[in-house]
Amino acid sequence: MFHLVTLTTDFGDGSCYVAAMKGVLLGVCPAANIIDLSHRIPPQDLRYAAYFLLAAVPYFPPGTLHVVVVDPGVGSERGILYVEAAGQRLLAPDNGCWTLLVDEANPPARVIRLTEPQYWRPQVSNTFHGRDIFAPVAGHLLNGADPAALGEPVAEWRTLALPRPTITDTELSGEVVFIDDFGNLLTNIPGEALLKWADRPVRITAGAHVISRRVRTYAEADSGALVGLISSMNTVEIAVVQGSAARILGAKIGWPVQVRADFLR
Amino acid sequence: MFHLVTLTTDFGDGSCYVAAMKGVLLGVCPAANIIDLSHRIPPQDLRYAAYFLLAAVPYFPPGTLHVVVVDPGVGSERGILYVEAAGQRLLAPDNGCWTLLVDEANPPARVIRLTEPQYWRPQVSNTFHGRDIFAPVAGHLLNGADPAALGEPVAEWRTLALPRPTITDTELSGEVVFIDDFGNLLTNIPGEALLKWADRPVRITAGAHVISRRVRTYAEADSGALVGLISSMNTVEIAVVQGSAARILGAKIGWPVQVRADFLR
Amino acid sequence: MFHLVTLTTDFGDGSCYVAAMKGVLLGVCPAANIIDLSHRIPPQDLRYAAYFLLAAVPYFPPGTLHVVVVDPGVGSERGILYVEAAGQRLLAPDNGCWTLLVDEANPPARVIRLTEPQYWRPQVSNTFHGRDIFAPVAGHLLNGADPAALGEPVAEWRTLALPRPTITDTELSGEVVFIDDFGNLLTNIPGEALLKWADRPVRITAGAHVISRRVRTYAEADSGALVGLISSMNTVEIAVVQGSAARILGAKIGWPVQVRADFLR
Repeated sequence: MFHLVTLTTDFGDGSCYVAAMKGVLLGVCPAANIIDLSHRIPPQDLRYAAYFLLAAVPYFPPGTLHVVVVDPGVGSERGILYVEAAGQRLLAPDNGCWTLLVDEANPPARVIRLTEPQYWRPQVSNTFHGRDIFAPVAGHLLNGADPAALGEPVAEWRTLALPRPTITDTELSGEVVFIDDFGNLLTNIPGEALLKWADRPVRITAGAHVISRRVRTYAEADSGALVGLISSMNTVEIAVVQGSAARILGAKIGWPVQVRADFLR
Repeated sequence: MFHLVTLTTDFGDGSCYVAAMKGVLLGVCPAANIIDLSHRIPPQDLRYAAYFLLAAVPYFPPGTLHVVVVDPGVGSERGILYVEAAGQRLLAPDNGCWTLLVDEANPPARVIRLTEPQYWRPQVSNTFHGRDIFAPVAGHLLNGADPAALGEPVAEWRTLALPRPTITDTELSGEVVFIDDFGNLLTNIPGEALLKWADRPVRITAGAHVISRRVRTYAEADSGALVGLISSMNTVEIAVVQGSAARILGAKIGWPVQVRADFLR
Repeated sequence: MFHLVTLTTDFGDGSCYVAAMKGVLLGVCPAANIIDLSHRIPPQDLRYAAYFLLAAVPYFPPGTLHVVVVDPGVGSERGILYVEAAGQRLLAPDNGCWTLLVDEANPPARVIRLTEPQYWRPQVSNTFHGRDIFAPVAGHLLNGADPAALGEPVAEWRTLALPRPTITDTELSGEVVFIDDFGNLLTNIPGEALLKWADRPVRITAGAHVISRRVRTYAEADSGALVGLISSMNTVEIAVVQGSAARILGAKIGWPVQVRADFLR
């Protein structure tokens, strides 16, 4: 029996709602090993949640159950899905937040829409399905419940997609898709694309700012330097060494980023 | 043996004091399954702690041990209590923070004042009983120590009470008793009281603001709408859909809230 | 087998980097009992990390593994160390953050520099050794890997030291070395030194402020009083009862603090 379950919500650290979810989950499965991933997803920010899951979920052992409650549609007709994808298992609202984990080449192995209330709390509130549906279903899954018993298989679901970068022989164009707690700017431009110019100077722009220094690692440049590098997610990252690029540049999600081989320089 | 223990403190997330408590607890009971509930109770805010526990503790499996260190009286003559109430077990300062879990109809099954230092750390500081008394006692309880050995049964303790709402045939009057991380305003007015006017227009006021829209769930109204609804705690809640009612209205704990059946409308 | 492992980082609460580390660690050792100590170490603040570890690590059961990723030198030639010290085990960058746990009289029992990549993730990024080296090595250690197999024993490492207080018969001089989440100011002046004047008035100064009230515990003085006392770390502490001394005094790490026996008073 595999008792590992992670929680990702936008409820806030130390929220009584997270506490109640843990109580319900442990009530159904006292052997659950609950791992907090984050309760600081910005409220109802599905894109942030999607990128967060992409950065965290693939590192877990296969079969881990990930409960994701970022759910602006709670109480509406939006479904709640059990998903098997990328070797992982998820419970998430049908709002696309998990869909960066899959693509056409790697579709989910199974998607089931929860319909069977015998796996839920007897009274389901209109505003807190995390406690009343997600948590007890997670407990039953950890206890070995057959996912097929939870509801109906579905072939359609809502999707989110990261904006696609544009990659040519001389220019990589994308945008800032995530800002981490250090203030580093993560883009959607694949790091591999930058590697083809490994031996040439490049010119990186982010918003109206020019980043002329490219490094392999933060420690290569002095404190305060504005640098471009390949992130731990294998994408182009813009950082201020031992500082916050987000704060210093005033950067935001969606900022355009360009990388150009500076052949003339 | 039941090894589940939760921690609730006002020490702050990532506090070295919480870390030290975990170390001591695991030193006594290495098999402890420690569940963080919250370390963000506002410092020394007993009312917040009381409401938090009411929103979280009842969802845990019976017999779970809840360690609560919100303790403005640390080092004074205030006692530390072991409590069995509502099917749960608690260790808490005798400052009333746990007493919303009980009432006259549902008194605690057992209350013991800790007096036996053989269950404490050998050196007890004057400022940190969480580490020196609560944590080791919790470890011994998880190891199966008999609560009767920890101290003396007591029949009196300090109590806190939520302010009581006033409910008449035409008006429900109460106040904001809790604000969650989304900025939703939770009141002490029972949701059932609102249901009796389910088929009539109602007029809700909070402070100087009028909330004319009543919904069953957030998703029924547009983003930004100011609405009244029944909360996941079965009380009247005031919310801004996909926004923060607390910030937008400037709301505070203690704000008067009224619900009136709007018969003339 | 001893599966207890703690995490201390400067990644921020709810960081996707912490989540990824937990995933990798659990992938290697699914039985790991992961205890979050703090993810709020101020970014790259080695002194804060050092003091934090001093306040937390010694309370854990002997043999606990502590993973510390506060690592401004990630990707540079700085080493990563496996350390046995003070009865505990640590994985930490070779930047001195763990060295307050040892001194000349109590040196580490073993220090090994990690060199063996078969214990790491197959691809090691330049910016995230927490995920790619620390987490898998921690998992292998929990699984019982022999530390000697991880790398080479070393006899030298970087050290940090707390500033030393000056103690004379009439004056104790030191500084603020830590500020907790309540805003209490912890100094490097040993509490025992203050005890020798237990029966005399003392005059405590912190920055330009005079603290004339000495108490045994917060509850001895009224709310708002500025007091000196012996902290839970057995050092001189300056506090505002039920308030934040840091905010009210505008105090900072490094503020000079003096305690003088006030013989003439």
